[in-house]
Amino acid sequence: MRGQAIVLAINGWDPRGWEQRFRALAGNRAVHVFPDALQAADSIAYACAWKPDPGALAKFPNLKAIFSLGAGVDHLLRDPRLPQAPIARIVDPGLTQRMTEYVVLHVLMHHRRVRLYDAQQRACLWRDHDQPPATDVSVGIMGLGVLGQDAIEALKRIGFKLNGWSRTEKNIDGVQTFHGAAGLDLFLAQTEILVVLLPHTPETERILNLALLRKLKRNGALGGAYLINAGRGMLQVNDDIVAALDEGALAGASLDVFPIEPLPKESPLWRHSKITITPHNSASSVPRELVQNVLDQIARFERGEPLQNVIDRKLGY
Amino acid sequence: MRGQAIVLAINGWDPRGWEQRFRALAGNRAVHVFPDALQAADSIAYACAWKPDPGALAKFPNLKAIFSLGAGVDHLLRDPRLPQAPIARIVDPGLTQRMTEYVVLHVLMHHRRVRLYDAQQRACLWRDHDQPPATDVSVGIMGLGVLGQDAIEALKRIGFKLNGWSRTEKNIDGVQTFHGAAGLDLFLAQTEILVVLLPHTPETERILNLALLRKLKRNGALGGAYLINAGRGMLQVNDDIVAALDEGALAGASLDVFPIEPLPKESPLWRHSKITITPHNSASSVPRELVQNVLDQIARFERGEPLQNVIDRKLGY
Repeated sequence: MRGQAIVLAINGWDPRGWEQRFRALAGNRAVHVFPDALQAADSIAYACAWKPDPGALAKFPNLKAIFSLGAGVDHLLRDPRLPQAPIARIVDPGLTQRMTEYVVLHVLMHHRRVRLYDAQQRACLWRDHDQPPATDVSVGIMGLGVLGQDAIEALKRIGFKLNGWSRTEKNIDGVQTFHGAAGLDLFLAQTEILVVLLPHTPETERILNLALLRKLKRNGALGGAYLINAGRGMLQVNDDIVAALDEGALAGASLDVFPIEPLPKESPLWRHSKITITPHNSASSVPRELVQNVLDQIARFERGEPLQNVIDRKLGY
Repeated sequence: MRGQAIVLAINGWDPRGWEQRFRALAGNRAVHVFPDALQAADSIAYACAWKPDPGALAKFPNLKAIFSLGAGVDHLLRDPRLPQAPIARIVDPGLTQRMTEYVVLHVLMHHRRVRLYDAQQRACLWRDHDQPPATDVSVGIMGLGVLGQDAIEALKRIGFKLNGWSRTEKNIDGVQTFHGAAGLDLFLAQTEILVVLLPHTPETERILNLALLRKLKRNGALGGAYLINAGRGMLQVNDDIVAALDEGALAGASLDVFPIEPLPKESPLWRHSKITITPHNSASSVPRELVQNVLDQIARFERGEPLQNVIDRKLGY
């Protein structure tokens, strides 16, 4: 199918699994990998990308749509020569489910004081501590899109009190919601465990700084505030997280994303006793699950249906 | 109210919080603490007990009911001189919720490989590993009472495949159930993460032994089998858990209960890298939540209603 070929432009992940899966499922549609794809540049209609080289996608003059293979699109928007084709985010039930697994796990780890009991185990110390039930603990979700709302539903089933914050107003059953700059301080003042699922935009960059973290509720049922960042690394000011932990604004943090990835070996975050680090795997994109999703979108698009989950370039998500 | 007084017989926990709470909520009803209560022995109608001294409850000739203040009753039944009054277990929504928190937390810790990433963090190592989604992972619950069924509902919401085993046949929506000795091997062969919420009875004592653990499914999505014992310590053969971990029958274990508690400092369980130990706090009994529950039961009993959650002494639960 000339003029309907796919280019895979993938950095930071092993592209081979994606290539195999796309070739296996694409039927007659040609699948090329960047930079070899340049030899067939005119035939390429769809780019499936993760952290493509800046300027790479501009080399395909007939691009009709760009698909981000992960949950974010900031890696695309930072390319000043990005073509004007529509950009579709991945919204995949499997990806959403994985993120909910991660969020529920890390909320419960802080709530049930896993790191305190880990330290006691190392000291062979048998000692119980006061344990508030989930119904006394306030979890606040920043970012109320598909991922945030699914995590909320699972946390609600466990029993947590839930607050939510988003850029624009949202109403979610059983959740106290806040929005915009005006609602942020009130949201933080009622949040003991802060779960961050925001996109990276100019407005959210470095939002997880010391001034914000100091506004979290420290005197709630848990007796301290906790941060879980499973959103984007550029939201987070690493030095401020450490400062917040060391002065007591935070009692613990789970970090899955970082401004520079992989997190450099010399970063003090690795060695901080109150930080749990995961290697950006809260909701990994897996070819097995996502490739069919993208191919289905392309097929619908070619039948004349609108692309789903197209991002707004001005908003950045 | 003579002839309707309460005795608190509590060992292993600090009795003061219970005493204060009972006195605060009991109105005109007298509340005595063992052994001082012996001076008013004739007036005692209700015993509220946790691990009472053997023979202690036999000293109250007018006992109408015995309430266990924790989820189990094995601590009562081991007393050969236990009076014949009916014994009621605690079935409290707060206790159930706490157990579900614990079960969901530890299932997700094994599923999402927390101990592997902990070790990588200590080595400042950024490396992702294959991660099956919850929908590919089989969790098996042994014990399908109130606690088991609530945990199942929460795990279902996360996405896990669920099996259940109990002594007698139970049907639970969306769960593959097995029962009795005849169903046990098939249940184990389909279970990657085994969650044990059984009572301690002559039939279940030392059930978690090497022969049983070797029957778990090791070649499932997780590539290994995991044990979570939040039931009773006497179910578990400590040496066999270590042997199962060392030979690979188990890939990890979360243990909240032990045959001897506190777990002795010299136990090798403390230092095993694949074992997570918690100090019997999966679902702690808290006076704030439970005392009103017991007093409500007594009030209903005095109005002529039947006691709830009365155990069968022959079955042991």
